[in-house]
Amino acid sequence: MNTTDHTVKSYDNELTHLDNAIARMGGLSEALLGRASEALVKRDTTLAGNVIHDDLKIDELEMEINTEVTRILALRQPMADDLRMVISALKTSSDLERIGDLSKNIAKRTITLSSAAPIGAVHTIARMASLVQSMVHNVLDAYLERDERKALDIRAQDEVVDQLHTSLFRELLTYMMEDPRNITPCTHLLFIAKNVERAGDHATNIAENVHFLVTGVHPEDDRPKDDETSFTGLEEE
Amino acid sequence: MNTTDHTVKSYDNELTHLDNAIARMGGLSEALLGRASEALVKRDTTLAGNVIHDDLKIDELEMEINTEVTRILALRQPMADDLRMVISALKTSSDLERIGDLSKNIAKRTITLSSAAPIGAVHTIARMASLVQSMVHNVLDAYLERDERKALDIRAQDEVVDQLHTSLFRELLTYMMEDPRNITPCTHLLFIAKNVERAGDHATNIAENVHFLVTGVHPEDDRPKDDETSFTGLEEE
Repeated sequence: MNTTDHTVKSYDNELTHLDNAIARMGGLSEALLGRASEALVKRDTTLAGNVIHDDLKIDELEMEINTEVTRILALRQPMADDLRMVISALKTSSDLERIGDLSKNIAKRTITLSSAAPIGAVHTIARMASLVQSMVHNVLDAYLERDERKALDIRAQDEVVDQLHTSLFRELLTYMMEDPRNITPCTHLLFIAKNVERAGDHATNIAENVHFLVTGVHPEDDRPKDDETSFTGLEEE
Repeated sequence: MNTTDHTVKSYDNELTHLDNAIARMGGLSEALLGRASEALVKRDTTLAGNVIHDDLKIDELEMEINTEVTRILALRQPMADDLRMVISALKTSSDLERIGDLSKNIAKRTITLSSAAPIGAVHTIARMASLVQSMVHNVLDAYLERDERKALDIRAQDEVVDQLHTSLFRELLTYMMEDPRNITPCTHLLFIAKNVERAGDHATNIAENVHFLVTGVHPEDDRPKDDETSFTGLEEE
């Protein structure tokens, strides 16, 4: 170990521990979204209940990372790369906590959802969720490998999620107009789809954290992160 | 100035500057939400356009605070109270940026909204927005005065916002079932109301940041922050 390395061994351990905690949180968030989506497709309210419960583990990990970051900042006064690592861990844990929360929201609406919900729309949501799961997986790899190019590839994947979301929005409005009995289930599906779309936004945020972690600057904010459904209607057209 | 005070004058200035930046961001976010609500009530698309544009100023302030926090952490290595202040500023600026973003989303949907949107529902949303504005105002006062009791009072206000949101959700479903022509405008109103409700959640997050800032610990997470509309339907009942 040369003089530019950390001379205090336990400090190194602390930074490695932070990476591990992010990796674990990422794995849990990715899995929770997948299980929320599975509960929706199978109308499995027991699984949905488990998802709601297991979100607590992700919340606990975020608290742990928060405490650890505050401690490292106070005791180790990290500089340069180490400081960026600590700030990135703080921001990334907050995004992962939100992905857990959104998965929990999906599970809660799944429990309420009547069996009359249109199956085609449910499958589109499952496809969106599967894309977002792979975004979370890839962005965590990029984070742990400090690979900013891989991280920024996530943006292109998020565009696909957004496109699916916009077309699903129109489809759900059509179902509601065809039959008033579709209105309540389709409203829940609108919010479930929105939750998946927002989980994709948080994966994209993490990609930007990785870019900052590796390069020290924030990427140009040119990504199309707006929700196109704001401008989407049917009968006005 | 005694020896326990900061001995470097410019460091004091930097911390004061951070408080000022948060105060300015808070003022802008509160005003932007108010203007988004006014644009909705008056169906003023010009005002809505201005809201969308002015959200940029809030984004810029967040970037400024991010840069300043990173610089202070690197150069000043703050301890104890100062460290908590820097971390709280970072978290609070992120919540204020989200309130700005949510106001922008309200403005975007306002531009799309047809004139057929039920006026009673619009006024309920304006009432919710006005409550959230005062929450943002009060929580920023609490932040700048380091008053954790005032901060935690925000939670009670957020419960009122949540109750209004849940009853509005039911009301909007009823309108949609009465007449299919209401479906598109009421869907946009559902999302607008959800944006206001989420802005209230971010004000509540800031209250928790204030509690951490003053006491050094996070408050017990017993607040009812769940969206009750997850369990709300009409025809299933």
